[in-house]
Amino acid sequence: MKMNNERTEISDLGEFGLIGHLTKNIELQNVSSLVGVGDDAAVIDHFGKQTVVTTDLLLEGVHFDLMYTPLKHLGYKSVVVNLSDVYAMNATPTQITIGIGISNRFSLEALDEFYEGVYAACNHYGVDLVGGDTTTSQKGFVIAITAIGEVTPDKFVKRSTAKKGDLLCVSGDLGAAYVGLLFLEREKKIFLESPKVQPDLEGEAYVIGRLLKPEARKDIIEFFAEQSLLPSSMMDISDGLSSEILHICKDSEVGCVLYEDKIPIAEETRSAAFKFEIDPTACALSGGEDYELLFTMPQSDYEKINNNPAISIIGYMTEAGEGAHIITKGGSRHEITAQGWNPIGK
Amino acid sequence: MKMNNERTEISDLGEFGLIGHLTKNIELQNVSSLVGVGDDAAVIDHFGKQTVVTTDLLLEGVHFDLMYTPLKHLGYKSVVVNLSDVYAMNATPTQITIGIGISNRFSLEALDEFYEGVYAACNHYGVDLVGGDTTTSQKGFVIAITAIGEVTPDKFVKRSTAKKGDLLCVSGDLGAAYVGLLFLEREKKIFLESPKVQPDLEGEAYVIGRLLKPEARKDIIEFFAEQSLLPSSMMDISDGLSSEILHICKDSEVGCVLYEDKIPIAEETRSAAFKFEIDPTACALSGGEDYELLFTMPQSDYEKINNNPAISIIGYMTEAGEGAHIITKGGSRHEITAQGWNPIGK
Repeated sequence: MKMNNERTEISDLGEFGLIGHLTKNIELQNVSSLVGVGDDAAVIDHFGKQTVVTTDLLLEGVHFDLMYTPLKHLGYKSVVVNLSDVYAMNATPTQITIGIGISNRFSLEALDEFYEGVYAACNHYGVDLVGGDTTTSQKGFVIAITAIGEVTPDKFVKRSTAKKGDLLCVSGDLGAAYVGLLFLEREKKIFLESPKVQPDLEGEAYVIGRLLKPEARKDIIEFFAEQSLLPSSMMDISDGLSSEILHICKDSEVGCVLYEDKIPIAEETRSAAFKFEIDPTACALSGGEDYELLFTMPQSDYEKINNNPAISIIGYMTEAGEGAHIITKGGSRHEITAQGWNPIGK
Repeated sequence: MKMNNERTEISDLGEFGLIGHLTKNIELQNVSSLVGVGDDAAVIDHFGKQTVVTTDLLLEGVHFDLMYTPLKHLGYKSVVVNLSDVYAMNATPTQITIGIGISNRFSLEALDEFYEGVYAACNHYGVDLVGGDTTTSQKGFVIAITAIGEVTPDKFVKRSTAKKGDLLCVSGDLGAAYVGLLFLEREKKIFLESPKVQPDLEGEAYVIGRLLKPEARKDIIEFFAEQSLLPSSMMDISDGLSSEILHICKDSEVGCVLYEDKIPIAEETRSAAFKFEIDPTACALSGGEDYELLFTMPQSDYEKINNNPAISIIGYMTEAGEGAHIITKGGSRHEITAQGWNPIGK
């Protein structure tokens, strides 16, 4: 490896700073490359239909812990998180490719379980596994999935096109997966200290299920098509509501007002969060792994959106100069930060 | 992790056995999925054009050794090996996505070097980097690349369509990358034992260059288009000539006769192989990492093919029952095996 005189720590840039740095000089060469890096997925023109493509890399010990993640669930989730990126472009996923690296600690039966989950997701969402690569790893389980989808020309929805006055909307409910993770991490710690203690997860099926077996919001994309709705911007929530809202604000050059009391949080999530003495709103804002869709809609579509119980209107977009703010239940106004809001941290 | 009562070691199946096992129950659901797993790349129909997609996963310590692989070369090669799979379908690559996992031992400058190589390859081959994923790894460098390409409808070329009587052809020359690897591994060993000894690689630029900076055969695909040639089957040579020939024979249900004296081997490769006292033919048959194209052509195209100095006709296809054989320079006939031929091992 070549030695450098200068050394900049990657951690100094953060994930998005790093992506920006690495991709700042890209000039697209093919007329078919309609949207490149910087959104949930890329868009490629194919003479009549447009193709959406997105890749995720999942590493053991970073993205999943096999101590409490059944391999079948892992296979299912690995597919779902990629499909979620395709839906977030308002597209329909059609194919996936999967590359896996496995060490010799995995048996064929273990790998079969993983693929059972992969195929279950493919069947559920109607996508085809069309290719891949299987290789040995020295250590740990490596999963690389690419999803391909189709979208009617110019119906794809980017993050960068929200307008002032648009409604800010979210599907489903938020924060559950994060609380599910807290339970599993707690039980893992107890198990490592006292292997004979049985895990105590009774009544937490909802939040744990949301972590281990998330679903992508195919139904929302179908609802948009049925109702001839086209969001003005959209992305999926993988890092937490506040971080994703800031992406839309920055990329669209708008501000927003978010109402805490409008953020959808399931009763199961609230009661689970209380057991850890944490604020359910903080779980929704900065927990992540919800795989719900965050989108903006023109106000003229208020009625159509409001009639769908799976969608919550949680705020509206403002001018960029007004910044991104949350109005708390108590009526006070705070700036939204990537970790939740100021001054109350997680 | 769920424990299984049965345990089958993955190594018992081998790579191709494993892929076959994991994909045996796939039923393609989308009419747009024309070719699925089992070829260099998948083919997807897009109403007028067809899309080719392929994924590779490259892991440090398994696929590359950073002790003698400059990061810029690694970036270049990571792209090239994927594009090679697209060309092997007779398609033109147009986009790539790249997922990387990096540990904190890599600085930003190191990552920049890697991406310099990625962008150099993108520019050279006219493809766009349109997306990806950047993540932390606990250990080692992980690279996942997906390449997408276009092909005129029904001009894609699979491995499974060679016919009895077809000419067996290969581009460029073979075996060099393997000998290059032997040199680098030898110098690494010497360096680890005596760090002050300077590496002795003089005169071996060709074979080392073929390992560290391979090129994909874009020119051959362009030649086919100019000459209105369509191979009856094709794949790229990543695992070694003999292994790839057996793939074509098995998938196309044909046999073949290969002539040892027709296998193209560069003078630099021959003289380098002699320094290690190994047979240059063995390097070509089972070395791998050549990224040349192996293809079959109807005999009626003999003249067109024979006029291209970048292509060698190395044999012909026979009936499946006749098996796959090599005629050595001495005139004897041996069965081709994935590791070279019987009974002479490598």
